[in-house]
Amino acid sequence: MRKFAFGTSVLGLAAGFMFGMGSAVSAAEPTLSEADFEEAKLLYFQRCAGCHGAERKGATGKSLEPKATQKLGQKRLEKIITLGTEGGMNNFDDIFSKEQISKLATFIQMEPPKPSEMSLEDMKKSVKIYVKPEDYVKKPMHGRNWENFFVVILRDAGKMAIIDGDTKEVLSKVDTGYAVHVTKETSDGRFWYTIGRDGKQNKIDLWMDPPQVVAESQIAYDARDIAVSHYGEWKDKYVIAGGYWPPHFVISDAVTMEPLKVVSTRGVNVDGAFVNEARVAAIYNTPKSPSWVVAVKELGQVWQVDYSDLENLRIEQMDSHKFLHDGFFDPTQKYFQIAANASNRMEFFDTTTRKFVGSLETGKMPHPGPGANWTDEKCGPVGATGHIGEGMITVWGNDPEGHPDQAWKTCYKTETDGAGLFIRTHPNTQYVFMDQPKHPEPEIQQSIQIMDKKTRKIVKTIRVTDREKSIALHGEFNADGSELWVSVWARGGKADWMNGEIVVYDTKTLEEKARIKGLETPTGKFNVYNRVHHVT
Amino acid sequence: MRKFAFGTSVLGLAAGFMFGMGSAVSAAEPTLSEADFEEAKLLYFQRCAGCHGAERKGATGKSLEPKATQKLGQKRLEKIITLGTEGGMNNFDDIFSKEQISKLATFIQMEPPKPSEMSLEDMKKSVKIYVKPEDYVKKPMHGRNWENFFVVILRDAGKMAIIDGDTKEVLSKVDTGYAVHVTKETSDGRFWYTIGRDGKQNKIDLWMDPPQVVAESQIAYDARDIAVSHYGEWKDKYVIAGGYWPPHFVISDAVTMEPLKVVSTRGVNVDGAFVNEARVAAIYNTPKSPSWVVAVKELGQVWQVDYSDLENLRIEQMDSHKFLHDGFFDPTQKYFQIAANASNRMEFFDTTTRKFVGSLETGKMPHPGPGANWTDEKCGPVGATGHIGEGMITVWGNDPEGHPDQAWKTCYKTETDGAGLFIRTHPNTQYVFMDQPKHPEPEIQQSIQIMDKKTRKIVKTIRVTDREKSIALHGEFNADGSELWVSVWARGGKADWMNGEIVVYDTKTLEEKARIKGLETPTGKFNVYNRVHHVT
Repeated sequence: MRKFAFGTSVLGLAAGFMFGMGSAVSAAEPTLSEADFEEAKLLYFQRCAGCHGAERKGATGKSLEPKATQKLGQKRLEKIITLGTEGGMNNFDDIFSKEQISKLATFIQMEPPKPSEMSLEDMKKSVKIYVKPEDYVKKPMHGRNWENFFVVILRDAGKMAIIDGDTKEVLSKVDTGYAVHVTKETSDGRFWYTIGRDGKQNKIDLWMDPPQVVAESQIAYDARDIAVSHYGEWKDKYVIAGGYWPPHFVISDAVTMEPLKVVSTRGVNVDGAFVNEARVAAIYNTPKSPSWVVAVKELGQVWQVDYSDLENLRIEQMDSHKFLHDGFFDPTQKYFQIAANASNRMEFFDTTTRKFVGSLETGKMPHPGPGANWTDEKCGPVGATGHIGEGMITVWGNDPEGHPDQAWKTCYKTETDGAGLFIRTHPNTQYVFMDQPKHPEPEIQQSIQIMDKKTRKIVKTIRVTDREKSIALHGEFNADGSELWVSVWARGGKADWMNGEIVVYDTKTLEEKARIKGLETPTGKFNVYNRVHHVT
Repeated sequence: MRKFAFGTSVLGLAAGFMFGMGSAVSAAEPTLSEADFEEAKLLYFQRCAGCHGAERKGATGKSLEPKATQKLGQKRLEKIITLGTEGGMNNFDDIFSKEQISKLATFIQMEPPKPSEMSLEDMKKSVKIYVKPEDYVKKPMHGRNWENFFVVILRDAGKMAIIDGDTKEVLSKVDTGYAVHVTKETSDGRFWYTIGRDGKQNKIDLWMDPPQVVAESQIAYDARDIAVSHYGEWKDKYVIAGGYWPPHFVISDAVTMEPLKVVSTRGVNVDGAFVNEARVAAIYNTPKSPSWVVAVKELGQVWQVDYSDLENLRIEQMDSHKFLHDGFFDPTQKYFQIAANASNRMEFFDTTTRKFVGSLETGKMPHPGPGANWTDEKCGPVGATGHIGEGMITVWGNDPEGHPDQAWKTCYKTETDGAGLFIRTHPNTQYVFMDQPKHPEPEIQQSIQIMDKKTRKIVKTIRVTDREKSIALHGEFNADGSELWVSVWARGGKADWMNGEIVVYDTKTLEEKARIKGLETPTGKFNVYNRVHHVT
């Protein structure tokens, strides 16, 4: 509203607000050649977008929009990328060259390129069938005890290893999407679905000899989690996967991997502000109802998505806190427990009433991974998480029916040497196992700590590896809980990959039993029996 | 991926898709001075965005993105704005000056400015209380038969007139948002909530003498519909209003008008493509359950939004067809009937099962407005709509329980002289009344046509006005159905406004009974008794 007058002043104001007033363009905006811009864009997507967002508005990491980065300037940005920060950002001088760091520092001072959308039609075109469903084998062809197989992420190789838990033989390494975050199974444990960081979802058949990928499709450019429908008449009918970008979830046919339905998760967060890049973190099937829980990270909401009628899709948008990450169920399979890591909280939902039921302040940045449940002598049934931000195990009551006074309240906390990612236990062991890969010191990040459920104290520390640039992480049990498998991730670049291994411990004696060698960057492991039977 | 190689080719592809390849910028992009740009932006918002969208991606009107408009060029665009199109766009030479048309033609060839967001915090700041709830009067202060009041939109004046239906006196004209589209009432009919095109929602108290606005707030920059919660314990507790921009709906406290909850409607349409500007068209309370139906125009989905728990908000996203516009309930108040005007269809939803139940091909661009239901001798209970695209009344069966063979199927069609907006009837009249304001000829757009329910034939045409630049539209009945009130909208600019009037007809004799004069651009009218008792 400058030299002219039109309409009511109310409307003038509205239009002024609506489009924003004229914005200044910096005369000295940094620039890159087209080739350098494309390179920086790719590096940013691979290594930075996960924390800072495809649109650079920030999430786990800070906002990297030009108004913020231009203030810091080229030199300071290069230093931050090179050395990392106190706030938790890694150093990148072992991953990027000096030239690449310089390009990235310039790139993040320029206007972020607008990320592309992906339509259902695009996704449908991406379907690849390697084995037709009518050609699926009718029984396990290898005669092995496949219910004790381990499905193992070989992260940086973009593969999954299938390992025989009885014999410790590596049966196959199958190609999947890049940097798989997680894999989920059909209700009988035969088929396993992976989701890559590149949004590719693959379906693996454990009955083939050797186990093999039978179908794939792509549902996003960046993604983190996947789940299968397990309830009632919809058992093993649908697969759902969540996108980081585009921010949405996609329901596909679990047989053919054909995408069927896309639902955007862009929305208004629990503070009332619109978030375009509202990403899907964790997704789980809810055993007590025909639905999945979908954690929409930046919104601070868990959406319970009912799969009983895709054309009249029912969703409960359950408010909690930001930013949601990963979660697990209580032993009754009724309550969903998930970390809101930016709020230093665990959040609790009743998936039968489809409502938020509680919130617990934990240590700094809780991260349960697949989580741990057991029964404490004083508190009754409990759940537990480790933390990315500090060396601590937080244990809470999770039995509101039997122990209402303890429910969603801290039972106790036990300190560990270093911050970690994965806490695990099993009904057949008296111990709780916690890794510590987020600690900067090699001797700690290469060790796991073991807590006694009875005394609540750390009773042993095991150095899993002492190889340079290797870290120990993620425990998983064999079917009867007599063994704990821990990954050793050799991080010294591609030439070092094959030095990765899995170390197997006896869960009674805590002695080493075996080493499974020649595994490229193993991370998460999934035992068929334990996952099918929800053993956490 | 040009001169460098990094990561897997899969990922290279993903990042390439994700951000799009380098886009060319036209060297000869048209420009405007800042003042002219601001003027054109405002004109565009007031007159063009409703059909072409705030982001200019098109909806009812065509896409006006630079790639499309630059091909047409300045001269051709000016001609289209001046004269309109065969496709249904009005001429604008009577609204804009030649200079303004030239600026608009340039503006729409430039990159659209990014529209602003509006947070819950922004909305909360906009609340204005004119009368505190504790100071509300305890009974009607004017001693009038307020249940026969008419609440009348004075569209271009940004006001509502309150008219005594018994005496035909104009009791007050109260200030509201700009170009109110609709008003909805509390369950007793005392309070009326308006929503302006500027996103302002106002609350009017009919018991005051004279009736007056008691509170307001703003929930969007552009908006169309509003509704109140009427069910069970939530009766008259919440108001919901929908935004065109930002594309969202907002639930507010119906007493204080304080916004409480914002939900984005940006989403994936029924064809599987993401739509950023997915606007909220119609919103209605569902009498049979604690919810509203929210029509998300561009998605082709009706969202049934449950208001029984705002923190665990349940929504059914019910798929139908694009683009959804306005709707009404069947006489049992169970089925919601809404126009998908771009698909030339009526869509039907069962609001008790919260599911899509049927779809009917109609004539071109159905537009029921508040709609009409009656009982046909052959088909049983029926609903009906007129059309924006042709002069026709389409009548369908809407009683799946009693007349399953007729349900959601065409019973009959009756031609009228011209395309219209509003069809109306009442149980106490044998007639159905249809307006024709979309016909280009004055003698038709100034006339309503009357169909006999028994013979299904047009039995009379009434010329409501013959004033230049005036059109006749929108019928509403008084409480006992003995009168039909029709608006005469004097469109000759602000100087002509006060020539607007309402003409009252006897619904038995079809003779004129009265003219209520001095009304600035009257359009929609809402009789308290009929709306409270769902008389359609």
